Amino acid sequence: MARPTPLSGFPEFSPAERIAEQRVLDTLRATFESWGFASLQTRAVEPMGQLLRKGEIDKEVYVLRRLHADPDEEQDPDRTLGLHFDLTVPFARYVLENSGKLQFPFKRYQIQSVWRGERPQEGRYREFTQADIDVVGDGELPFHADVEVAQVMAEAMGRLPLPPLRMQVNNRKLIEGFYLGLGAADAAAVMRAVDKIDKLPADAVRALLVAEAGLDGDQADLCLRLATISGTDASFAGEVRALGVEHPLLDEGLEELVRVVEAVAPLATDRFTAVADLRIARGLDYYTGTVFETRMAGFESLGSICSGGRYDSLASDGAKTYPGVGISLGVTRTLAPLFARGRIAVSRSVPTVVVVALADEGSRPACQAVAAQLRARGTAVEVSPNAAKFGKQIRYADRRGIPFVWFPQDDGTHQVKDIRSGEQVPADPSTWVPPAEDLLPSVVAG
Amino acid sequence: MARPTPLSGFPEFSPAERIAEQRVLDTLRATFESWGFASLQTRAVEPMGQLLRKGEIDKEVYVLRRLHADPDEEQDPDRTLGLHFDLTVPFARYVLENSGKLQFPFKRYQIQSVWRGERPQEGRYREFTQADIDVVGDGELPFHADVEVAQVMAEAMGRLPLPPLRMQVNNRKLIEGFYLGLGAADAAAVMRAVDKIDKLPADAVRALLVAEAGLDGDQADLCLRLATISGTDASFAGEVRALGVEHPLLDEGLEELVRVVEAVAPLATDRFTAVADLRIARGLDYYTGTVFETRMAGFESLGSICSGGRYDSLASDGAKTYPGVGISLGVTRTLAPLFARGRIAVSRSVPTVVVVALADEGSRPACQAVAAQLRARGTAVEVSPNAAKFGKQIRYADRRGIPFVWFPQDDGTHQVKDIRSGEQVPADPSTWVPPAEDLLPSVVAG
Repeated sequence: MARPTPLSGFPEFSPAERIAEQRVLDTLRATFESWGFASLQTRAVEPMGQLLRKGEIDKEVYVLRRLHADPDEEQDPDRTLGLHFDLTVPFARYVLENSGKLQFPFKRYQIQSVWRGERPQEGRYREFTQADIDVVGDGELPFHADVEVAQVMAEAMGRLPLPPLRMQVNNRKLIEGFYLGLGAADAAAVMRAVDKIDKLPADAVRALLVAEAGLDGDQADLCLRLATISGTDASFAGEVRALGVEHPLLDEGLEELVRVVEAVAPLATDRFTAVADLRIARGLDYYTGTVFETRMAGFESLGSICSGGRYDSLASDGAKTYPGVGISLGVTRTLAPLFARGRIAVSRSVPTVVVVALADEGSRPACQAVAAQLRARGTAVEVSPNAAKFGKQIRYADRRGIPFVWFPQDDGTHQVKDIRSGEQVPADPSTWVPPAEDLLPSVVAG
Repeated sequence: MARPTPLSGFPEFSPAERIAEQRVLDTLRATFESWGFASLQTRAVEPMGQLLRKGEIDKEVYVLRRLHADPDEEQDPDRTLGLHFDLTVPFARYVLENSGKLQFPFKRYQIQSVWRGERPQEGRYREFTQADIDVVGDGELPFHADVEVAQVMAEAMGRLPLPPLRMQVNNRKLIEGFYLGLGAADAAAVMRAVDKIDKLPADAVRALLVAEAGLDGDQADLCLRLATISGTDASFAGEVRALGVEHPLLDEGLEELVRVVEAVAPLATDRFTAVADLRIARGLDYYTGTVFETRMAGFESLGSICSGGRYDSLASDGAKTYPGVGISLGVTRTLAPLFARGRIAVSRSVPTVVVVALADEGSRPACQAVAAQLRARGTAVEVSPNAAKFGKQIRYADRRGIPFVWFPQDDGTHQVKDIRSGEQVPADPSTWVPPAEDLLPSVVAG
């Protein structure tokens, strides 16, 4: 066949990029599990009736059809399947379906592909990987779960080989209470207007607040001043109080936000900071308390790459309601733009640490035995695919970024060469291990 | 909404089962990488034209449609997408698409979901995970690649927490050469008849060989005798020679099969054996040399759970041909029947090793600090979700199989209780680590 061309919106990573992606996924998994979050994988498909319940993104769903489907299968909406477009809808369905078997509070992480038939552009793909954590309760879920998911994701993000990340936290109760306290009749309309603050000049948002949310000029100004407040400790609460608005919901939201920020701001590293940012609203209707967004330095145009919050009803079967709190990190939408700009450096394109050089094809079994000895202590080893001149075998390693070439000697001894420095030294296959920093490929933000 | 029900053919594992699946996938990955195989993930979709090229399983493909697709998109076969039904077709496409960027021989492993719209039954699902390894060459690929993929998969299978596995190896050149050597006019027809040997009585296969492959009775008997030969060392070759058939292709195939068997038979463990088995043919047309199948003890009705072989042309762009050799392990089709019969025991349903008990809600920050200390040395720790009576907190751990509960004491010291034995001892959060065997959940074949 002719050489195929890439499909727009379906990114595929090179072997070296995949090593970086695996490092990110391994780091996320290790962090999530260290906090006791269990892994879950749901099927890729849901009945279309499930996927379209929220209505808002129906046009983005991929619908499935078996090439030779039975006619009755095609007609039945409960039997028509679509690919899931996020990991929250399938998780909510999984919780309802298995509620009798699960232990609550149920803490799970889920790292899977999702699909959306959107028009592709940078940071927006038709197939992409998400990494979600959620805690879900049976009937009730204490507020400390909000603090915990923030801490877990903050700790994970601080370990990723990415440009600096900034987590922004807010609280829906806080802003709704504020709007109600200053006399807004329609808090949701105020929120929709304030949500445009990153896209429109302040004057335009102010005009919207007056025209569409029914505020007077003073009220609109207070809303804009609230949205400018941010901070990494409890002192932001004083700035909010100083605006003079009072409401019980505002008090509750302020206290919650202070607790989250005091727990995550100390987790700051050179790659991660967390702040209370009172401009963050999240458009989605189902959030009812804490909300999270995250920006990556130099890639602000991607929008938030890690978002979530508290929802009082993740799922409900009529008899019971399951409240939850969760955060979702967009793995593909974070990594693909970084790869495209060469902003993540990977030291090699294979797991291999050592290539065992082959003097002639007849010595392959002996070289495999050396490789097996080295593997037994956790070193990734290949035997050279051919007995070409040693210079060519070294280039085989070099082209892949493999740091060491091993040379069995005629007298039964062995030598190992670091092809970066050229240094070649005697070595014993029953004891040699590579330097710890060479055991895995290095993956660093560039 | 009402409680949802499972979708037939789309298995979802419980948290404990998922821990077992992860252990299997981690073991496969670690083994594959220790031999220098690089991870690859391809997109889930291919143009329908690609998926239907082989023709044979077209009715099983899931076709995708965007809910609000453009009309021209619907008409264009190159733009109509389907979910991949194996990992070989997308890998072949990936190799062609990226041949200019890849280093050959290219050794990759790929662990992903695949989809087939088949009628579901045990061991046959509509969505399932496969784990593939392949080595592909640019124009040529030395035979030792066949030996290597057999060794890698044999080593991996020997480490899996499964009932005993038996890898059966054969060689297409051997059997084709044998059929040609005894005078068969249509070696493919002979192979199709012999391939029924597990399903039909010997007499019936003999009748097929005469009626459909045009053999006489003596020739048919020789074919049946060949198919009964098996062995774990080179001696099987003597049995083949004793049948008195000669052909250059037979010689070549015999030598190759001896080399594979001599390399993998010594990797036998109490959970894994490998044999030359001259009855194995693999139905698929594209195999041209080594072929592999694998049966699981007590689950023979599943058929082969790990299969593959050599194909002289994995892919071709007209100018160049890429030969390959690979093996594919059916992860879901192996695990789901074992889970259904309770044949894999997992010690807990969460990664957590320790629950830090909570005397009162006010001590949560102090308990989180203890948890952070324990996590710093790689222990998975949860703080109790509530300050219920200690008996209830111990039951929280017990219900999940978590082995330890940690008790901060009023005097600032600490104690840790092994809730399996009831033993409670003083412990220091800055140095304590669990016994090595408790660090991860245990996963054992039952």
